[in-house]
Amino acid sequence: MRPSSSSSDSPVPAGSGLFDAVSRRGPVPGLVSDVAYLQAMLDTEAALARAQARAGLFPADHADAIAEACHAGRFDIAEIGRAAAAAGNPVVPLVGLLRAAVGGAAGGYVHAGATSQDILDTAIMLVARSALTAIVAEVDAAGDAAARLAADHRHSVMAGRTLLQQALPTTFGAKAAGWLSGLDDAAALLGSVRHRCPSVQLGGGAGTLASLHPHGPEIVAFLAEELGLAAPALPWHTNRSRIGELAGALGVAAGALAKPARDVTLLAQTEVAEAREGTPGRGGSSTMPHKRNPVAAIATLANTTQAPGLVATVLAAAGGHEHERAAGAWHAEWHPLRELLVSVGAAAAWLADCLTHLEVDPDRMRANLDLTGGARQAVEEQRRVGPSLAGVDVAKLDPAEYLGATDEFIAAALRRHSDRSESER
Amino acid sequence: MRPSSSSSDSPVPAGSGLFDAVSRRGPVPGLVSDVAYLQAMLDTEAALARAQARAGLFPADHADAIAEACHAGRFDIAEIGRAAAAAGNPVVPLVGLLRAAVGGAAGGYVHAGATSQDILDTAIMLVARSALTAIVAEVDAAGDAAARLAADHRHSVMAGRTLLQQALPTTFGAKAAGWLSGLDDAAALLGSVRHRCPSVQLGGGAGTLASLHPHGPEIVAFLAEELGLAAPALPWHTNRSRIGELAGALGVAAGALAKPARDVTLLAQTEVAEAREGTPGRGGSSTMPHKRNPVAAIATLANTTQAPGLVATVLAAAGGHEHERAAGAWHAEWHPLRELLVSVGAAAAWLADCLTHLEVDPDRMRANLDLTGGARQAVEEQRRVGPSLAGVDVAKLDPAEYLGATDEFIAAALRRHSDRSESER
Amino acid sequence: MRPSSSSSDSPVPAGSGLFDAVSRRGPVPGLVSDVAYLQAMLDTEAALARAQARAGLFPADHADAIAEACHAGRFDIAEIGRAAAAAGNPVVPLVGLLRAAVGGAAGGYVHAGATSQDILDTAIMLVARSALTAIVAEVDAAGDAAARLAADHRHSVMAGRTLLQQALPTTFGAKAAGWLSGLDDAAALLGSVRHRCPSVQLGGGAGTLASLHPHGPEIVAFLAEELGLAAPALPWHTNRSRIGELAGALGVAAGALAKPARDVTLLAQTEVAEAREGTPGRGGSSTMPHKRNPVAAIATLANTTQAPGLVATVLAAAGGHEHERAAGAWHAEWHPLRELLVSVGAAAAWLADCLTHLEVDPDRMRANLDLTGGARQAVEEQRRVGPSLAGVDVAKLDPAEYLGATDEFIAAALRRHSDRSESER
Amino acid sequence: MRPSSSSSDSPVPAGSGLFDAVSRRGPVPGLVSDVAYLQAMLDTEAALARAQARAGLFPADHADAIAEACHAGRFDIAEIGRAAAAAGNPVVPLVGLLRAAVGGAAGGYVHAGATSQDILDTAIMLVARSALTAIVAEVDAAGDAAARLAADHRHSVMAGRTLLQQALPTTFGAKAAGWLSGLDDAAALLGSVRHRCPSVQLGGGAGTLASLHPHGPEIVAFLAEELGLAAPALPWHTNRSRIGELAGALGVAAGALAKPARDVTLLAQTEVAEAREGTPGRGGSSTMPHKRNPVAAIATLANTTQAPGLVATVLAAAGGHEHERAAGAWHAEWHPLRELLVSVGAAAAWLADCLTHLEVDPDRMRANLDLTGGARQAVEEQRRVGPSLAGVDVAKLDPAEYLGATDEFIAAALRRHSDRSESER
Repeated sequence: MRPSSSSSDSPVPAGSGLFDAVSRRGPVPGLVSDVAYLQAMLDTEAALARAQARAGLFPADHADAIAEACHAGRFDIAEIGRAAAAAGNPVVPLVGLLRAAVGGAAGGYVHAGATSQDILDTAIMLVARSALTAIVAEVDAAGDAAARLAADHRHSVMAGRTLLQQALPTTFGAKAAGWLSGLDDAAALLGSVRHRCPSVQLGGGAGTLASLHPHGPEIVAFLAEELGLAAPALPWHTNRSRIGELAGALGVAAGALAKPARDVTLLAQTEVAEAREGTPGRGGSSTMPHKRNPVAAIATLANTTQAPGLVATVLAAAGGHEHERAAGAWHAEWHPLRELLVSVGAAAAWLADCLTHLEVDPDRMRANLDLTGGARQAVEEQRRVGPSLAGVDVAKLDPAEYLGATDEFIAAALRRHSDRSESER
Repeated sequence: MRPSSSSSDSPVPAGSGLFDAVSRRGPVPGLVSDVAYLQAMLDTEAALARAQARAGLFPADHADAIAEACHAGRFDIAEIGRAAAAAGNPVVPLVGLLRAAVGGAAGGYVHAGATSQDILDTAIMLVARSALTAIVAEVDAAGDAAARLAADHRHSVMAGRTLLQQALPTTFGAKAAGWLSGLDDAAALLGSVRHRCPSVQLGGGAGTLASLHPHGPEIVAFLAEELGLAAPALPWHTNRSRIGELAGALGVAAGALAKPARDVTLLAQTEVAEAREGTPGRGGSSTMPHKRNPVAAIATLANTTQAPGLVATVLAAAGGHEHERAAGAWHAEWHPLRELLVSVGAAAAWLADCLTHLEVDPDRMRANLDLTGGARQAVEEQRRVGPSLAGVDVAKLDPAEYLGATDEFIAAALRRHSDRSESER
Repeated sequence: MRPSSSSSDSPVPAGSGLFDAVSRRGPVPGLVSDVAYLQAMLDTEAALARAQARAGLFPADHADAIAEACHAGRFDIAEIGRAAAAAGNPVVPLVGLLRAAVGGAAGGYVHAGATSQDILDTAIMLVARSALTAIVAEVDAAGDAAARLAADHRHSVMAGRTLLQQALPTTFGAKAAGWLSGLDDAAALLGSVRHRCPSVQLGGGAGTLASLHPHGPEIVAFLAEELGLAAPALPWHTNRSRIGELAGALGVAAGALAKPARDVTLLAQTEVAEAREGTPGRGGSSTMPHKRNPVAAIATLANTTQAPGLVATVLAAAGGHEHERAAGAWHAEWHPLRELLVSVGAAAAWLADCLTHLEVDPDRMRANLDLTGGARQAVEEQRRVGPSLAGVDVAKLDPAEYLGATDEFIAAALRRHSDRSESER
Repeated sequence: MRPSSSSSDSPVPAGSGLFDAVSRRGPVPGLVSDVAYLQAMLDTEAALARAQARAGLFPADHADAIAEACHAGRFDIAEIGRAAAAAGNPVVPLVGLLRAAVGGAAGGYVHAGATSQDILDTAIMLVARSALTAIVAEVDAAGDAAARLAADHRHSVMAGRTLLQQALPTTFGAKAAGWLSGLDDAAALLGSVRHRCPSVQLGGGAGTLASLHPHGPEIVAFLAEELGLAAPALPWHTNRSRIGELAGALGVAAGALAKPARDVTLLAQTEVAEAREGTPGRGGSSTMPHKRNPVAAIATLANTTQAPGLVATVLAAAGGHEHERAAGAWHAEWHPLRELLVSVGAAAAWLADCLTHLEVDPDRMRANLDLTGGARQAVEEQRRVGPSLAGVDVAKLDPAEYLGATDEFIAAALRRHSDRSESER
């Protein structure tokens, strides 16, 4: 059994809040909505029942009856949310409602041997997995756009700029290949986390699986099969390595997404004017309609800027788990992990949009390079440091002849992205 | 004109989400809801129109017509939210809708001379002010409960514990006085920020107030009067000191709220059992109903743990403002500042609940102290370090006679809290 | 007795490490050196002895003998550092060495009634106070330079830029006034913290002052007098509000310091070229000597970027204090608080250098503004939003006539800075 | 050529500072010392020369002459450090000194075609690799100790505690197996990063390798071989994925190290007394010598608490790189990355010490469990949730018979650790 795709059957709440246009873009908000979490918890309860039936703890039709009831649409999220205050988490009231919904003998087998954290941690893994899939797809979409820019502008000569000063010539293709390299690193890292980290959590009241003894480990294995997650060697309720690794990878992705966005804001400066966002109908100003603001790049940065603090919170919480269940540190993870998925997902969606519609001006790039003469002077100064200018009359050197290995770098980045397109996605 | 109290006219969304029981407690979520932000933006537009009419830019009845339309209930938040994607912020579509709603000649004066950031920054100040008022009240409620505990347990002798080891005797009253001291520090700091920081922001397109010249500074002063905010010497669109100071104060408050909560979780340990939460109907476990979990303390910690990372994000964003308006750093502030208000507000509400219903067991405190003998040994070792044991037969010394200045500390803390109750609230 | 100025009698270690040129600039590293901390601990021990003698606990000549020995130069820091591993803090071995150094009857009164945290927390306050004084002076030096720029360039018209796009005209004086406003906010906040926060800490083993009873509170008051620090109503060993408030203020200052530095890097771009750093002999590149890199601005940003994470660590630690002494959270504060002082101190020193030597090119500013025509178009679009262009022929309008309240803003910022120069410093 | 082992030829500065006993423990401080960084930069320059000679750019004896001079002991770190202020990084003065030291024709080939960031980024990778090797060894040492505890205490029954309340029985072996699981996760993750991330960086002035054209990519490959690092497809000067991934893994490790330390502080509480640190000569208190403080656990936590904020800084810096070289964000990485290595290294060394000398009291564990009866009541309540108690007379049930899968979990954790010992180390 695979978890039902909650986002397709439920109203997607993304984009309807006052600030959601910036912070809730793309598919991720729908995948981490309350409905999605609730459905993931219910999927876990249903899979747990099936796993226990497979292990012979009770008849399969009890499991079927439980699974039958496990649809988010049957439950009132607000009611669960309010009732959660008594226990400190939403699983306790959900189990009560689910038992009542199932009724009869089968109802007595709902949540058997599990504790709240088992259900919620497993649900978090299901939610994170589906969000990661979507985030990787968005990062790849941004990568596709960067790859197109790298291929199209292989020969678009421009000033390389270090410390915001014109330095030596490069090409816009090389710059885009650098973006692509970071995006592919991020996609590969997120993909690796997506494949390795999501695991079921099942330990019972104190992490011993005592009430399911001697069937505990077998049920863990079945549960993992049912949900398509990994089966951990041990319960990981107080070992948050998986969560921390996920958060760290999202933090790395935020940096890779920020890089092209920052460059776009700089290239789009009035005085530079080498690129601008071209998405129709976007970028106007309330006071100055003539401006074309790089809204997508800005929104990307607005989201990526929030990631490091959220990563820090998740990592800090990981160090605070006491004994067999944390007194606060576990609860402290829920919100920042969700926000981290949303922020990075939104950043990726914005950047894909930004790069897909980016309008590049190679003539202006060349003009800026020539205008300053900086690059020529830089080339002159390079004469003594390397072999490539031996016997060259630098005064007559075209910057377009001083591009070093940019072509090979572009080719390497495109090759890697193409390989990724074929195999890793 | 005072901003209308948005929270009273709108459905409070707090508590209806799946995880909101833990993270959305108390009045703050309602005060920072989308409706509250929208109303604050509308209050700003209305006040701006009045200020301009007072300055003679247009007739007062145009301002009245504008103010008439400035009610959040007339606008569709989802529509504004979606339209915000084009400009990157919700003010642009709001202004369009407001102009249409006002219509006629007056409609042309909506938002005159202002830029989006003016409206949103001023609205953020209005929202932050009302949230701060509520947070201070919650912190004070927690302080009141701590004060009662300090007064009631002035003579409840218990082990002082350093590095989690029993050290010398103290009283529970002294411990509670220490909590109170931190809470009163936090309330005073938040109160001070609440009084000093909230200022109007009005600069126009590039922070020069050019289109309102020569009336700009006068209109700023009038706008401040209308909203009951301070008038800054200069526009502060790229000087985020106010925002940073607010965030820092909330971070300090989080620490002060965490301290008693952490102590409660430790005092409530099965082996210590010196205190437990007594709120009726709370703290059950899904697998072990006999347990009385310190849910309120745990929820407090879940919220306070999230504050430092949010503070870091707000402070990091403050350093990223380019020229006359930031390309991302401003947008990056919105969400973490709101979350910070919510987290600290929720923590304060949970802690007030925790301390108000705390059940303290002085007999167990005394028994724990005597059980170990640790304290007696410690007192013995103290003999040589101070004057207070000269001539005392330590073997016969009751720990209750070795409490130093605890009484004076309790009195000092209570006096300060009482003074605060009278003057600062 | 005032604490001896450790930085003047000891070799200043700043600037001698491999990376210290960037991260250890200005006086602060010397003021927070190991020698400075050691001297502050010794100053505290000496003052404690005097305070106890004043309270009549022992003869004044014992206190004199103790004070006599309290010079950092007499102790081997490496020896103390190594011995600190046994107890987890350097006070324990220091007290042993100090007792031995004092010898005789007086030696027995060293550290009487105090605990390690009392000495180190009080020393941290002494160190923080002297570092804050230096940081405020550096921020003020940066402010002085910004004030000069604001006054000198009152009429240097330039493009105001929002979202990195040219918007409406402004003046470089107004931009510098904005910087000044942030710097003065930061200096005022740091100055306020410097005056309010530094307090003695004295509680003894469990915060009760039991071994000094009934002289405890009197000795606290005397100790505060001796050191020129405030006397708190209660010991604050587990109430870290002071530390958190200090950290928050340093975080705010980092943002205010980053703002001008970021603008300088943007103004110094090859294509913009409106300003450049003019410090002689700095800014060369290893490969491209023709470049003039804005090294001071970059170094400022390198330092300010480190502040938010350090603030988060200090705030997170504040929420982790258990009972009467924390098991780790206290120790976790030492390093980040020191680094925060150093980072912000270094940033302020770099920025003061940057702004003092900034070379501004008003002609280029005007040329950039005219080149694009952007501003004219913007002004045209402003016609309908405000009163200031009624009857104006915008086609003939000089941007220098469309500067709104910039002059008043500059005057207000200079007035505030001048008032600050006279009273607050 | 392998980089010379800097730590063996140079005085290790660790442990000599006032606070270094807590924060500078183990081998890592020596491996990230100024001398180590300097040697790594020199190793990079030497390897670059050899790589260029292999590519035929100049005779091999020039490379030999350069390599000959590349010993850190020949250079004055303080001189380099001071001179670094002019350029903003230490490579520029180092290259000048190295050229002078080499002299003659060979001197002219020093640093050919490289830029400062190439040398420092590659050196950072060398330093990080050696530090990671040491950190993994320390984490493994802590893991070995946890494995011993898990094996030795397979049958030491104790209370499982959730939310700090006694819940169901478990064994100390199972608890230690949980610690081990986290430590092995951390060691595996750090080991994976150590194998994948360290790569040479070589791009020249603008990342194009122009001055080495057409030999650039070949020289990169040779340089990588010389240093035993990976050769990246593209220069990564503005793609900080490697650095971010390293930081994230260190953050995860901090959480895994904190977990056992926190549990030790809780188990060592006077009222619990189930374990205590047994390292001879450590843990005394300045006022209460009878106490045995868990100094190693506390110092572990002091270090791990600092990691999340440092990770956030490194990740935030990664998002701030402009164009072909960052104006501040690169410099902002140096210090926090080094501190992160030191903090996690110190935490691992402290925890290894803590767990190696941990004294466990199984009798007290059993007594605590029986004392409260909590566990029996919990077991009673479990009857209805699972199959394992069918037909059991719970009143007569020994908690030692209700341990579920703890044995299997211990075996699984030990097996994984043993596999790791054989293959991964």
